[in-house]
Amino acid sequence: MNAHDWSTAEQQIAQAAFKNAYDRETSTLIQDVRAKAGSIARLEDLWRLHDFLSARRHEIDGKYDYSYPSLIFVFAELLREGWLHLGDLEGLSRDKLAKITSLARM
Amino acid sequence: MNAHDWSTAEQQIAQAAFKNAYDRETSTLIQDVRAKAGSIARLEDLWRLHDFLSARRHEIDGKYDYSYPSLIFVFAELLREGWLHLGDLEGLSRDKLAKITSLARM
Repeated sequence: MNAHDWSTAEQQIAQAAFKNAYDRETSTLIQDVRAKAGSIARLEDLWRLHDFLSARRHEIDGKYDYSYPSLIFVFAELLREGWLHLGDLEGLSRDKLAKITSLARM
Repeated sequence: MNAHDWSTAEQQIAQAAFKNAYDRETSTLIQDVRAKAGSIARLEDLWRLHDFLSARRHEIDGKYDYSYPSLIFVFAELLREGWLHLGDLEGLSRDKLAKITSLARM
């Protein structure tokens, strides 16, 4: 599925949905790190925070790849993880919604 | 300079001095990270914290190498950085103290 399979309206919906999920996940991560940092007492806790940040950065950099060939899969993953809501995708074709929700259930 | 160049008393002083410097530097780092984390507002701030932790972890892992051949140099560096105090080294031979303080001034 390439860019031409997405209408202009769908592309706008997809971009906004993508941004919503990204904003939700990253603001949750920021809160999480602030809470973790507040309870750091020893150096091991600090390196554990460092390991956590390394893993999350790698995961987020990899996951938020906005490209039309992978968008259905990215949306399915974000939906499963709860960062994307079905309401964000309102206006996409039935076919795309069916693919996304069915992949999200796997 | 190897372990046999350090008397038992000097080895005990060196170990305690090393631990003091390590404790001072790492507890300052922990406070620093807690303060930095408290002011994280955006994802860029989070990744900046991650970069900072990567660099500090690498530096600390490399610097706190307790081995007699490098101890004079490590102490000089820690003295220059302020993590080690001259009082921590009280009881080392004049010769060692002279080497450490002269290296620390370089």
